[in-house]
Amino acid sequence: MREINLDNLDDIARGAGILGTGGGGDPYIGKLMAREAIRKYGPVRLVAFDEVPDDATVVPVSGMGAPTVLLERVPAGGEEVAALRALEKHIGRAATHIAPIEVGGVNSMLPIACAAEAGLPLVDGDAMGRAFPEAQMVLPGLIGVANTPMALADDKGNSIIVDAVSNHAAERIARAVCVELGCQISSADTVMRGDQLTDGLVPATLTLAERLGAAVREARAAHTDPVLAARTMLSGTHLLTGKVIDVSRRTEGGFARGNARIEGIGDDAGRVLELGFQNEHLLATRDGETVATTPDLICVLDTDTGDPVTTEGLRYGLRVSVLAAPCDPRWTTPGGLALAGPRYFGYDVDYLPFRES
Amino acid sequence: MREINLDNLDDIARGAGILGTGGGGDPYIGKLMAREAIRKYGPVRLVAFDEVPDDATVVPVSGMGAPTVLLERVPAGGEEVAALRALEKHIGRAATHIAPIEVGGVNSMLPIACAAEAGLPLVDGDAMGRAFPEAQMVLPGLIGVANTPMALADDKGNSIIVDAVSNHAAERIARAVCVELGCQISSADTVMRGDQLTDGLVPATLTLAERLGAAVREARAAHTDPVLAARTMLSGTHLLTGKVIDVSRRTEGGFARGNARIEGIGDDAGRVLELGFQNEHLLATRDGETVATTPDLICVLDTDTGDPVTTEGLRYGLRVSVLAAPCDPRWTTPGGLALAGPRYFGYDVDYLPFRES
Repeated sequence: MREINLDNLDDIARGAGILGTGGGGDPYIGKLMAREAIRKYGPVRLVAFDEVPDDATVVPVSGMGAPTVLLERVPAGGEEVAALRALEKHIGRAATHIAPIEVGGVNSMLPIACAAEAGLPLVDGDAMGRAFPEAQMVLPGLIGVANTPMALADDKGNSIIVDAVSNHAAERIARAVCVELGCQISSADTVMRGDQLTDGLVPATLTLAERLGAAVREARAAHTDPVLAARTMLSGTHLLTGKVIDVSRRTEGGFARGNARIEGIGDDAGRVLELGFQNEHLLATRDGETVATTPDLICVLDTDTGDPVTTEGLRYGLRVSVLAAPCDPRWTTPGGLALAGPRYFGYDVDYLPFRES
Repeated sequence: MREINLDNLDDIARGAGILGTGGGGDPYIGKLMAREAIRKYGPVRLVAFDEVPDDATVVPVSGMGAPTVLLERVPAGGEEVAALRALEKHIGRAATHIAPIEVGGVNSMLPIACAAEAGLPLVDGDAMGRAFPEAQMVLPGLIGVANTPMALADDKGNSIIVDAVSNHAAERIARAVCVELGCQISSADTVMRGDQLTDGLVPATLTLAERLGAAVREARAAHTDPVLAARTMLSGTHLLTGKVIDVSRRTEGGFARGNARIEGIGDDAGRVLELGFQNEHLLATRDGETVATTPDLICVLDTDTGDPVTTEGLRYGLRVSVLAAPCDPRWTTPGGLALAGPRYFGYDVDYLPFRES
């Protein structure tokens, strides 16, 4: 057990932004909310899986919606706790622990805010080891943990409980509610017992996010390459360093979908990288050749600072470095690829196994 | 208390079809479901408001969706009970009585089927005294009864609980879920205590539906005018008898919306009536003059048989008689008109007070 305090938030947010592969919402906004909650309710106890009792009731909480909307309509705070309370009432027992559903962006921070406000310990791990756009894209699904009952809440005071016949059905229902309520709601779902965490979650990802964020910060302070620092920590590969020359994005069906083109500079001069995204970066094609695919991590970093660039932060002229990093190995099983492989997202390519090169 | 048995269903369905003002779904399909349930579970006890204990838990159940879809995808049955059970679990107590939310079409029959299957008495009354397309268009709303918690269920086994900040918000959320689940779900909502029924519901409307249906049947058997029989029982007025010459309809936002034109014949030769509908007939304009508006009842009957014609049953060449009848007086209060007056539906006319003529 260790504490998450105000001092930890910057590094966690930065690292989670990188692990979020462009999605999960702008970590800056989440950081403001986590900061506010810690100031008001005190620090959060971060616990490893082996510190969680077998019969614990662990409730992942998250924000759901299109990151583009998050930028325009900053959450009021407290919605995650509203979703948590609605879920607790429905299942008839109280949560003993909070967990992140994904380690990406705002969804690394909202669980911290929720844990602070609810006065509950936070599990150091998440259900993806990265960020993904849909509610059924969680590793607990591979061991038979349902994502329902799922409680949804908005900032107006509306709350919805979903009991679905499948994780995909729950996603469809929740997404319809999310769109109707303005593309920004909170969710408490995928309830787990303590003894399911090791099989269901990716361990120590909040700690990884913090170390990653610290590595980038320290490299910057030491005037060394912050992108290299991040890539080394993630055991990742270099895809391209260049300038964003083209971005097309649209908000549809509750998602921020689009493509971006990056023209290589320096050693990469003459090369072009294309990114496809749906909230997260999902596909990287370099000079017409697929070089990385979901579920592996495709991370876009500001070349100078090493800060993560979200899909909605991509804009013409930005100098970025793109790297790939291996996902949790459970994602590359047939079940994992069915949930979050490139074909699920409509890309006509097979998963490209990660290569260190 | 009296029993609803197989013998009562035809008359109730016919009468409820007329009271449904074109909406509430095809009563024929509802009748099949009610018949099946009564055969399997036995007759239903129909109780008047004064037979319901003050502390009773009365749960209105209904089908929600676009009637056009109902025709193509006949419900499996049992979804109303699924919604009822989900609601009971959520509110932590069992229903003591079932009620119809509206007396129109299929929604007069589904509560009979639900009451039979659940083994509960059915309240003789409903929350509209007619049919309306949206979930907040209920008289209990005028006395402060919320339509949430609302339980929704589909035929796949999905169920959703909505707790909303307003009846309108609940409608929006439920409609989004409804559309996502294929425009056909069941709802249990607007829970009332027994002592709220007199102020909240329109009394004896199932009995009215049955008497109306019987009057049409008996007129037909006696070779007298079945449309006149219906009009007399409803204290209604004649608007036009003619031939349907034009129908345009579309399914959008979970509703069947459209217009129809009827060319007068016989005494009405030379006149034209235009109908505007959104699941229900909401506006009647004769020779360019508004002659009836929601919330009054605009009923389209087959001229020969007196059978109700639903909005989705309107087709070229059909001989119909259109009549208007006064709604429950609570609908014409400012609160009632705000909920279901013509302007709410987007028609640029004021409510036209009903005139006997």
